Amino acid sequence: MTAPSKDYGQKLYEGKAKIVFKAPGGTLIHFFKDSATAFNAQKKAEFEGKGALNIKMSTLVFRYLTQNGVPTHFIRSIDERSFETKPLSMLPVEVVVRNRMAGSLARRLGEAEGAVLNPPLVEWYLKNDQKGDPQVSEDLLTSFYGVHAQDLTECRRQALRVNEVLSPLFDELGLILVDFKLEFGKDTDGKVLLADEFSPDTSRLWDKKTLEKLDKDRFRFDLGDLMSGYREVLARLEKRLAV
Amino acid sequence: MTAPSKDYGQKLYEGKAKIVFKAPGGTLIHFFKDSATAFNAQKKAEFEGKGALNIKMSTLVFRYLTQNGVPTHFIRSIDERSFETKPLSMLPVEVVVRNRMAGSLARRLGEAEGAVLNPPLVEWYLKNDQKGDPQVSEDLLTSFYGVHAQDLTECRRQALRVNEVLSPLFDELGLILVDFKLEFGKDTDGKVLLADEFSPDTSRLWDKKTLEKLDKDRFRFDLGDLMSGYREVLARLEKRLAV
Repeated sequence: MTAPSKDYGQKLYEGKAKIVFKAPGGTLIHFFKDSATAFNAQKKAEFEGKGALNIKMSTLVFRYLTQNGVPTHFIRSIDERSFETKPLSMLPVEVVVRNRMAGSLARRLGEAEGAVLNPPLVEWYLKNDQKGDPQVSEDLLTSFYGVHAQDLTECRRQALRVNEVLSPLFDELGLILVDFKLEFGKDTDGKVLLADEFSPDTSRLWDKKTLEKLDKDRFRFDLGDLMSGYREVLARLEKRLAV
Repeated sequence: MTAPSKDYGQKLYEGKAKIVFKAPGGTLIHFFKDSATAFNAQKKAEFEGKGALNIKMSTLVFRYLTQNGVPTHFIRSIDERSFETKPLSMLPVEVVVRNRMAGSLARRLGEAEGAVLNPPLVEWYLKNDQKGDPQVSEDLLTSFYGVHAQDLTECRRQALRVNEVLSPLFDELGLILVDFKLEFGKDTDGKVLLADEFSPDTSRLWDKKTLEKLDKDRFRFDLGDLMSGYREVLARLEKRLAV
Protein backbone atom coordinates (compact mmCIF):
# COMPACT_ATOMS: atom_id res chain seq x y z
CA MET A 1 0.00 0.00 0.00
CA THR A 2 1.47 3.29 -1.07
CA ALA A 3 -1.45 5.71 -0.99
CA PRO A 4 -2.95 6.56 2.40
CA SER A 5 -6.47 5.20 2.91
CA LYS A 6 -7.64 8.03 5.09
CA ASP A 7 -7.65 11.82 5.19
CA TYR A 8 -4.59 13.21 7.02
CA GLY A 9 -5.13 16.82 5.94
CA GLN A 10 -3.72 18.99 3.18
CA LYS A 11 -1.06 17.22 1.14
CA LEU A 12 2.08 19.37 1.16
CA TYR A 13 4.67 17.14 -0.47
CA GLU A 14 5.09 13.70 -1.92
CA GLY A 15 8.58 12.26 -2.16
CA LYS A 16 10.05 8.90 -3.10
CA ALA A 17 9.43 7.37 0.32
CA LYS A 18 6.84 9.52 2.06
CA ILE A 19 3.91 11.91 1.83
CA VAL A 20 3.67 14.89 4.17
CA PHE A 21 0.33 16.42 5.15
CA LYS A 22 -0.51 19.58 7.07
CA ALA A 23 -2.77 18.71 9.99
CA PRO A 24 -5.53 21.19 10.99
CA GLY A 25 -3.55 22.34 14.05
CA GLY A 26 -0.53 23.29 11.94
CA THR A 27 1.57 20.22 12.74
CA LEU A 28 2.66 17.76 10.03
CA ILE A 29 1.65 14.17 9.41
CA HIS A 30 4.28 11.99 7.72
CA PHE A 31 2.88 8.96 5.88
CA PHE A 32 5.56 6.36 5.03
CA LYS A 33 5.13 4.66 1.65
CA ASP A 34 6.14 1.08 0.86
CA SER A 35 8.31 2.22 -2.07
CA ALA A 36 12.04 1.63 -2.20
CA THR A 37 14.22 3.57 -4.60
CA ALA A 38 17.97 3.52 -5.19
CA PHE A 39 20.60 5.11 -7.43
CA ASN A 40 18.71 8.39 -7.68
CA ALA A 41 15.39 6.55 -8.32
CA GLN A 42 16.72 4.57 -11.30
CA LYS A 43 15.87 1.36 -9.39
CA LYS A 44 12.42 1.12 -7.83
CA ALA A 45 10.26 -1.48 -6.09
CA GLU A 46 7.44 -1.86 -3.57
CA PHE A 47 7.82 -3.83 -0.33
CA GLU A 48 4.59 -4.44 1.52
CA GLY A 49 5.00 -3.50 5.17
CA LYS A 50 8.18 -1.41 4.73
CA GLY A 51 6.43 1.86 5.52
CA ALA A 52 5.05 0.43 8.77
CA LEU A 53 8.45 -1.01 9.72
CA ASN A 54 10.25 2.28 9.10
CA ILE A 55 7.63 4.24 11.06
CA LYS A 56 8.12 1.89 14.04
CA MET A 57 11.88 2.04 13.86
CA SER A 58 12.02 5.84 13.43
CA THR A 59 9.63 6.25 16.34
CA LEU A 60 11.77 4.09 18.63
CA VAL A 61 14.97 5.84 17.55
CA PHE A 62 13.54 9.37 17.83
CA ARG A 63 12.21 8.65 21.34
CA TYR A 64 15.56 7.20 22.38
CA LEU A 65 17.40 10.22 20.97
CA THR A 66 15.12 12.64 22.83
CA GLN A 67 15.75 10.73 26.08
CA ASN A 68 19.46 11.11 25.38
CA GLY A 69 19.55 14.82 24.76
CA VAL A 70 18.89 15.07 21.01
CA PRO A 71 15.48 16.69 20.43
CA THR A 72 13.69 15.80 17.18
CA HIS A 73 10.64 16.89 15.19
CA PHE A 74 8.69 13.82 16.42
CA ILE A 75 5.53 14.51 18.43
CA ARG A 76 3.54 11.25 18.50
CA SER A 77 2.48 8.18 16.59
CA ILE A 78 -0.77 8.50 14.64
CA ASP A 79 -1.24 4.99 13.26
CA GLU A 80 0.97 2.19 11.98
CA ARG A 81 1.87 4.12 8.81
CA SER A 82 2.26 7.69 10.06
CA PHE A 83 3.50 9.98 12.81
CA GLU A 84 2.94 13.60 13.73
CA THR A 85 5.80 16.11 13.84
CA LYS A 86 6.52 19.78 14.45
CA PRO A 87 6.42 21.84 11.25
CA LEU A 88 9.98 22.85 10.36
CA SER A 89 11.59 25.01 7.75
CA MET A 90 13.89 22.39 6.25
CA LEU A 91 17.57 23.08 5.59
CA PRO A 92 18.47 22.08 1.98
CA VAL A 93 21.13 19.61 3.08
CA GLU A 94 21.62 15.96 3.88
CA VAL A 95 24.20 15.21 6.55
CA VAL A 96 25.92 11.84 6.36
CA VAL A 97 27.95 10.43 9.26
CA ARG A 98 30.25 7.51 8.47
CA ASN A 99 31.89 5.19 11.01
CA ARG A 100 33.15 2.74 8.36
CA MET A 101 34.24 2.95 4.74
CA ALA A 102 31.24 1.82 2.66
CA GLY A 103 28.80 2.65 -0.12
CA SER A 104 29.38 5.56 -2.49
CA LEU A 105 32.49 6.68 -0.57
CA ALA A 106 34.19 3.30 -0.98
CA ARG A 107 33.21 3.09 -4.67
CA ARG A 108 34.35 6.64 -5.43
CA LEU A 109 37.71 6.16 -3.68
CA GLY A 110 38.28 2.61 -4.88
CA GLU A 111 38.61 1.39 -1.28
CA ALA A 112 37.34 -1.85 0.26
CA GLU A 113 34.29 -1.60 2.52
CA GLY A 114 34.62 -1.95 6.27
CA ALA A 115 37.66 0.07 7.38
CA VAL A 116 36.97 2.09 10.53
CA LEU A 117 36.82 5.87 10.12
CA ASN A 118 37.91 7.42 13.38
CA PRO A 119 36.95 10.17 14.05
CA PRO A 120 33.69 9.57 12.19
CA LEU A 121 33.49 11.33 8.84
CA VAL A 122 30.81 14.00 8.28
CA GLU A 123 29.70 14.60 4.68
CA TRP A 124 27.26 17.10 3.19
CA TYR A 125 24.95 16.67 0.22
CA LEU A 126 22.79 19.33 -1.39
CA LYS A 127 19.16 18.20 -1.13
CA ASN A 128 18.14 18.54 -4.76
CA ASP A 129 16.64 15.56 -6.60
CA GLN A 130 16.98 17.21 -10.02
CA LYS A 131 20.72 17.67 -9.52
CA GLY A 132 21.01 14.16 -8.03
CA ASP A 133 21.79 15.35 -4.46
CA PRO A 134 25.44 16.20 -5.23
CA GLN A 135 28.06 16.09 -2.49
CA VAL A 136 29.15 19.57 -1.44
CA SER A 137 31.47 21.15 1.09
CA GLU A 138 30.32 23.27 4.03
CA ASP A 139 32.08 26.22 2.38
CA LEU A 140 30.07 25.81 -0.83
CA LEU A 141 26.81 25.49 1.11
CA THR A 142 27.45 28.80 2.82
CA SER A 143 29.11 30.76 -0.01
CA PHE A 144 27.02 29.57 -2.96
CA TYR A 145 23.81 28.01 -1.66
CA GLY A 146 23.08 30.58 1.05
CA VAL A 147 22.97 28.24 4.06
CA HIS A 148 24.05 29.91 7.31
CA ALA A 149 27.35 28.69 8.71
CA GLN A 150 25.99 28.54 12.28
CA ASP A 151 23.15 26.23 11.14
CA LEU A 152 25.68 23.84 9.59
CA THR A 153 27.77 23.94 12.76
CA GLU A 154 24.64 23.02 14.74
CA CYS A 155 23.74 20.21 12.27
CA ARG A 156 27.26 18.79 12.57
CA ARG A 157 27.16 18.97 16.37
CA GLN A 158 23.79 17.21 16.54
CA ALA A 159 24.73 14.63 13.86
CA LEU A 160 27.85 13.64 15.81
CA ARG A 161 25.79 13.51 19.02
CA VAL A 162 23.28 11.21 17.26
CA ASN A 163 26.22 8.99 16.37
CA GLU A 164 27.50 9.01 19.96
CA VAL A 165 24.06 7.96 21.20
CA LEU A 166 23.16 5.40 18.53
CA SER A 167 26.50 3.66 17.87
CA PRO A 168 26.67 2.10 21.36
CA LEU A 169 22.94 1.29 21.24
CA PHE A 170 23.29 -0.66 17.98
CA ASP A 171 26.52 -2.22 19.22
CA GLU A 172 24.59 -3.55 22.23
CA LEU A 173 22.14 -5.10 19.73
CA GLY A 174 24.97 -6.84 17.86
CA LEU A 175 24.86 -4.34 14.97
CA ILE A 176 27.48 -2.05 13.47
CA LEU A 177 26.15 1.41 12.66
CA VAL A 178 28.22 1.85 9.48
CA ASP A 179 26.75 5.17 8.35
CA PHE A 180 23.51 7.15 8.27
CA LYS A 181 21.88 10.16 6.62
CA LEU A 182 20.09 12.87 8.58
CA GLU A 183 18.02 15.91 7.65
CA PHE A 184 17.42 18.95 9.82
CA GLY A 185 14.98 21.85 9.91
CA LYS A 186 14.40 24.99 11.96
CA ASP A 187 11.35 25.54 14.14
CA THR A 188 9.57 28.90 14.49
CA ASP A 189 12.06 29.93 17.20
CA GLY A 190 14.95 29.28 14.80
CA LYS A 191 16.06 26.19 16.68
CA VAL A 192 17.68 23.45 14.57
CA LEU A 193 15.90 20.10 15.06
CA LEU A 194 16.53 16.61 13.71
CA ALA A 195 13.79 15.77 11.17
CA ASP A 196 12.95 13.16 8.52
CA GLU A 197 13.42 9.53 9.65
CA PHE A 198 15.96 7.02 10.95
CA SER A 199 15.62 3.57 9.36
CA PRO A 200 17.56 1.01 7.29
CA ASP A 201 16.46 3.10 4.28
CA THR A 202 18.70 5.92 5.51
CA SER A 203 21.45 4.01 7.32
CA ARG A 204 23.77 1.04 6.93
CA LEU A 205 23.55 -1.61 9.64
CA TRP A 206 25.71 -4.73 9.55
CA ASP A 207 25.49 -7.72 11.83
CA LYS A 208 28.56 -7.56 14.09
CA LYS A 209 29.40 -11.25 13.84
CA THR A 210 28.49 -12.16 10.26
CA LEU A 211 28.85 -8.67 8.71
CA GLU A 212 25.53 -9.41 6.95
CA LYS A 213 23.97 -6.23 5.61
CA LEU A 214 20.53 -5.63 7.10
CA ASP A 215 19.79 -2.33 5.33
CA LYS A 216 18.79 -0.91 1.93
CA ASP A 217 21.99 -2.27 0.33
CA ARG A 218 20.03 -5.57 0.21
CA PHE A 219 17.77 -3.87 -2.32
CA ARG A 220 20.48 -1.82 -4.07
CA PHE A 221 22.67 -4.84 -4.76
CA ASP A 222 20.15 -7.71 -4.60
CA LEU A 223 21.77 -9.20 -1.50
CA GLY A 224 18.66 -10.95 -0.20
CA ASP A 225 15.14 -10.29 0.99
CA LEU A 226 14.91 -6.64 2.02
CA MET A 227 12.14 -7.06 4.56
CA SER A 228 13.79 -9.84 6.54
CA GLY A 229 16.79 -7.55 7.11
CA TYR A 230 14.60 -4.66 8.24
CA ARG A 231 12.53 -6.96 10.46
CA GLU A 232 15.69 -8.29 12.12
CA VAL A 233 16.86 -4.75 13.00
CA LEU A 234 13.42 -3.78 14.30
CA ALA A 235 13.11 -6.96 16.39
CA ARG A 236 16.43 -6.25 18.13
CA LEU A 237 15.47 -2.61 18.72
CA GLU A 238 12.03 -3.51 20.07
CA LYS A 239 13.49 -6.07 22.47
CA ARG A 240 15.71 -3.35 23.92
CA LEU A 241 13.51 -0.25 23.66
CA ALA A 242 9.82 -1.05 23.28
CA VAL A 243 7.57 -0.32 26.25
CA MET B 1 59.60 16.81 -28.39
CA THR B 2 58.72 14.79 -25.37
CA ALA B 3 61.94 13.01 -24.42
CA PRO B 4 64.84 15.14 -23.18
CA SER B 5 67.78 15.30 -25.56
CA LYS B 6 70.40 15.57 -22.86
CA ASP B 7 71.40 13.95 -19.59
CA TYR B 8 69.79 15.63 -16.59
CA GLY B 9 70.72 12.96 -14.07
CA GLN B 10 68.93 9.96 -12.59
CA LYS B 11 65.32 9.68 -13.75
CA LEU B 12 63.11 9.56 -10.65
CA TYR B 13 59.62 9.81 -12.07
CA GLU B 14 57.81 10.23 -15.37
CA GLY B 15 54.27 11.57 -15.28
CA LYS B 16 51.76 12.66 -17.90
CA ALA B 17 53.28 16.12 -18.30
CA LYS B 18 56.79 15.99 -16.90
CA ILE B 19 59.88 13.96 -16.09
CA VAL B 20 61.77 14.53 -12.84
CA PHE B 21 65.50 13.84 -12.53
CA LYS B 22 67.79 13.83 -9.52
CA ALA B 23 70.74 16.14 -10.19
CA PRO B 24 74.18 15.19 -8.82
CA GLY B 25 73.94 17.78 -6.02
CA GLY B 26 70.67 16.31 -4.73
CA THR B 27 68.37 18.92 -6.26
CA LEU B 28 65.71 18.00 -8.82
CA ILE B 29 65.44 18.84 -12.51
CA HIS B 30 61.89 19.05 -13.89
CA PHE B 31 61.65 18.49 -17.64
CA PHE B 32 58.30 19.61 -19.10
CA LYS B 33 56.91 17.40 -21.86
CA ASP B 34 54.79 18.61 -24.80
CA SER B 35 52.01 16.14 -23.96
CA ALA B 36 48.52 17.25 -23.04
CA THR B 37 46.13 14.87 -21.32
CA ALA B 38 42.57 15.33 -20.09
CA PHE B 39 39.77 13.36 -18.44
CA ASN B 40 42.18 11.18 -16.47
CA ALA B 41 44.38 10.62 -19.58
CA GLN B 42 41.53 9.32 -21.75
CA LYS B 43 42.22 12.19 -24.18
CA LYS B 44 45.83 12.77 -25.21
CA ALA B 45 47.77 14.87 -27.70
CA GLU B 46 51.16 16.48 -28.30
CA PHE B 47 51.59 20.24 -28.73
CA GLU B 48 55.02 21.29 -29.90
CA GLY B 49 56.34 24.08 -27.71
CA LYS B 50 53.90 23.56 -24.82
CA GLY B 51 56.61 22.32 -22.45
CA ALA B 52 58.73 25.38 -23.11
CA LEU B 53 55.74 27.72 -22.67
CA ASN B 54 54.75 26.13 -19.35
CA ILE B 55 58.32 26.27 -18.06
CA LYS B 56 58.47 30.00 -18.88
CA MET B 57 55.12 30.73 -17.32
CA SER B 58 55.78 28.68 -14.17
CA THR B 59 59.16 30.38 -13.78
CA LEU B 60 57.61 33.85 -14.01
CA VAL B 61 54.81 32.96 -11.62
CA PHE B 62 57.06 31.23 -9.07
CA ARG B 63 59.45 34.21 -9.03
CA TYR B 64 56.54 36.61 -8.59
CA LEU B 65 55.12 34.50 -5.76
CA THR B 66 58.47 34.41 -3.96
CA GLN B 67 58.73 38.21 -4.26
CA ASN B 68 55.27 38.38 -2.69
CA GLY B 69 55.87 36.19 0.32
CA VAL B 70 55.04 32.71 -1.01
CA PRO B 71 58.24 30.63 -1.17
CA THR B 72 58.31 27.79 -3.74
CA HIS B 73 60.49 24.83 -4.68
CA PHE B 74 61.92 26.77 -7.67
CA ILE B 75 65.70 27.37 -7.63
CA ARG B 76 66.64 28.42 -11.17
CA SER B 77 66.04 27.90 -14.88
CA ILE B 78 68.23 25.25 -16.54
CA ASP B 79 67.21 25.55 -20.19
CA GLU B 80 64.04 26.29 -22.15
CA ARG B 81 62.48 22.94 -21.20
CA SER B 82 63.53 22.48 -17.57
CA PHE B 83 64.09 24.11 -14.21
CA GLU B 84 65.88 23.10 -11.01
CA THR B 85 64.04 22.80 -7.70
CA LYS B 86 64.56 21.83 -4.10
CA PRO B 87 63.91 18.14 -3.43
CA LEU B 88 60.67 17.83 -1.46
CA SER B 89 58.76 15.03 0.16
CA MET B 90 55.47 15.53 -1.69
CA LEU B 91 52.14 15.59 0.14
CA PRO B 92 49.67 13.18 -1.58
CA VAL B 93 47.13 15.92 -2.25
CA GLU B 94 46.09 18.37 -4.93
CA VAL B 95 44.67 21.64 -3.65
CA VAL B 96 42.23 23.45 -5.93
CA VAL B 97 41.24 27.08 -5.35
CA ARG B 98 38.15 28.30 -7.19
CA ASN B 99 37.12 31.94 -7.68
CA ARG B 100 34.34 31.11 -10.18
CA MET B 101 32.01 28.20 -10.76
CA ALA B 102 33.53 26.17 -13.64
CA GLY B 103 34.79 22.80 -14.81
CA SER B 104 34.09 19.61 -12.89
CA LEU B 105 32.41 21.51 -10.06
CA ALA B 106 29.87 23.14 -12.42
CA ARG B 107 29.22 19.83 -14.21
CA ARG B 108 28.80 17.87 -10.99
CA LEU B 109 26.42 20.41 -9.47
CA GLY B 110 24.54 21.16 -12.70
CA GLU B 111 25.36 24.87 -12.39
CA ALA B 112 26.28 27.33 -15.15
CA GLU B 113 29.94 28.37 -15.39
CA GLY B 114 31.02 31.83 -14.30
CA ALA B 115 29.29 32.62 -10.99
CA VAL B 116 31.66 34.22 -8.48
CA LEU B 117 32.58 32.12 -5.44
CA ASN B 118 33.31 34.48 -2.59
CA PRO B 119 35.11 33.57 -0.39
CA PRO B 120 37.09 31.42 -2.81
CA LEU B 121 36.41 27.71 -2.52
CA VAL B 122 39.21 25.34 -1.49
CA GLU B 123 38.91 21.72 -2.63
CA TRP B 124 41.12 18.69 -1.96
CA TYR B 125 41.89 15.77 -4.23
CA LEU B 126 43.82 12.64 -3.36
CA LYS B 127 46.84 12.45 -5.67
CA ASN B 128 46.41 8.92 -7.00
CA ASP B 129 46.23 8.32 -10.76
CA GLN B 130 45.00 4.74 -10.36
CA LYS B 131 42.03 5.89 -8.31
CA GLY B 132 41.45 8.83 -10.69
CA ASP B 133 42.48 11.56 -8.20
CA PRO B 134 39.18 11.44 -6.27
CA GLN B 135 37.92 14.50 -4.41
CA VAL B 136 38.26 14.09 -0.64
CA SER B 137 37.61 16.13 2.47
CA GLU B 138 40.31 17.38 4.82
CA ASP B 139 38.85 15.08 7.49
CA LEU B 140 39.25 12.03 5.26
CA LEU B 141 42.81 12.99 4.35
CA THR B 142 43.76 13.13 8.01
CA SER B 143 41.69 10.23 9.40
CA PHE B 144 42.05 7.72 6.56
CA TYR B 145 45.01 8.72 4.40
CA GLY B 146 47.36 9.70 7.22
CA VAL B 147 48.06 13.29 6.18
CA HIS B 148 48.83 15.58 9.12
CA ALA B 149 46.14 18.18 9.85
CA GLN B 150 48.72 20.94 10.37
CA ASP B 151 50.19 20.30 6.90
CA LEU B 152 46.74 20.70 5.34
CA THR B 153 46.18 23.89 7.31
CA GLU B 154 49.49 25.20 5.96
CA CYS B 155 48.60 24.14 2.37
CA ARG B 156 45.26 25.92 2.66
CA ARG B 157 46.89 29.07 4.03
CA GLN B 158 49.48 29.16 1.26
CA ALA B 159 46.95 28.28 -1.48
CA LEU B 160 44.72 31.18 -0.44
CA ARG B 161 47.76 33.45 -0.28
CA VAL B 162 48.72 32.37 -3.84
CA ASN B 163 45.20 33.36 -4.88
CA GLU B 164 45.48 36.75 -3.15
CA VAL B 165 48.75 37.41 -4.99
CA LEU B 166 47.85 36.06 -8.44
CA SER B 167 44.20 37.14 -8.81
CA PRO B 168 45.03 40.87 -8.90
CA LEU B 169 48.07 40.18 -11.12
CA PHE B 170 45.99 38.37 -13.75
CA ASP B 171 43.23 40.95 -13.38
CA GLU B 172 45.79 43.64 -14.27
CA LEU B 173 46.57 41.60 -17.41
CA GLY B 174 42.90 41.49 -18.41
CA LEU B 175 42.48 37.87 -17.28
CA ILE B 176 40.16 36.21 -14.79
CA LEU B 177 41.89 33.61 -12.63
CA VAL B 178 38.91 31.22 -12.51
CA ASP B 179 40.60 28.37 -10.62
CA PHE B 180 43.92 26.58 -10.25
CA LYS B 181 45.49 23.41 -8.87
CA LEU B 182 48.53 23.39 -6.59
CA GLU B 183 50.74 20.70 -5.12
CA PHE B 184 52.89 21.01 -2.03
CA GLY B 185 55.80 19.17 -0.48
CA LYS B 186 57.93 19.36 2.66
CA ASP B 187 61.64 20.19 2.66
CA THR B 188 64.19 18.53 4.92
CA ASP B 189 63.31 21.00 7.71
CA GLY B 190 59.66 19.96 7.49
CA LYS B 191 58.63 23.26 5.93
CA VAL B 192 55.68 23.11 3.52
CA LEU B 193 56.61 24.59 0.12
CA LEU B 194 54.64 25.18 -3.08
CA ALA B 195 55.82 22.70 -5.74
CA ASP B 196 54.87 21.40 -9.20
CA GLU B 197 53.98 24.15 -11.72
CA PHE B 198 51.63 27.02 -12.43
CA SER B 199 50.43 27.15 -16.05
CA PRO B 200 47.23 27.03 -18.17
CA ASP B 201 47.55 23.23 -17.84
CA THR B 202 46.78 23.58 -14.14
CA SER B 203 44.58 26.68 -14.06
CA ARG B 204 41.63 28.28 -15.81
CA LEU B 205 42.23 31.75 -17.25
CA TRP B 206 39.50 33.64 -19.09
CA ASP B 207 39.85 36.89 -20.98
CA LYS B 208 38.06 39.51 -18.86
CA LYS B 209 36.28 41.20 -21.79
CA THR B 210 35.44 38.33 -24.12
CA LEU B 211 35.41 35.50 -21.52
CA GLU B 212 37.45 33.50 -24.05
CA LYS B 213 39.10 30.50 -22.41
CA LEU B 214 42.88 30.61 -22.74
CA ASP B 215 43.65 27.41 -20.82
CA LYS B 216 43.55 23.64 -21.14
CA ASP B 217 39.76 23.69 -21.57
CA ARG B 218 40.60 24.60 -25.20
CA PHE B 219 42.02 21.09 -25.51
CA ARG B 220 39.46 19.35 -23.26
CA PHE B 221 36.49 20.68 -25.22
CA ASP B 222 38.06 21.47 -28.62
CA LEU B 223 37.47 25.21 -28.20
CA GLY B 224 40.29 26.33 -30.48
CA ASP B 225 44.04 26.17 -30.89
CA LEU B 226 45.58 25.33 -27.53
CA MET B 227 48.93 26.97 -28.13
CA SER B 228 47.54 30.36 -29.19
CA GLY B 229 45.70 30.56 -25.86
CA TYR B 230 48.80 29.66 -23.87
CA ARG B 231 50.93 32.08 -25.92
CA GLU B 232 48.46 34.90 -25.23
CA VAL B 233 48.66 34.34 -21.45
CA LEU B 234 52.47 34.15 -21.54
CA ALA B 235 52.76 37.29 -23.67
CA ARG B 236 50.70 39.30 -21.17
CA LEU B 237 52.68 37.91 -18.23
CA GLU B 238 56.04 38.61 -19.91
CA LYS B 239 55.05 42.18 -20.72
CA ARG B 240 54.35 42.73 -17.02
CA LEU B 241 56.98 40.55 -15.34
CA ALA B 242 59.88 39.68 -17.62
CA VAL B 243 63.19 41.28 -16.88
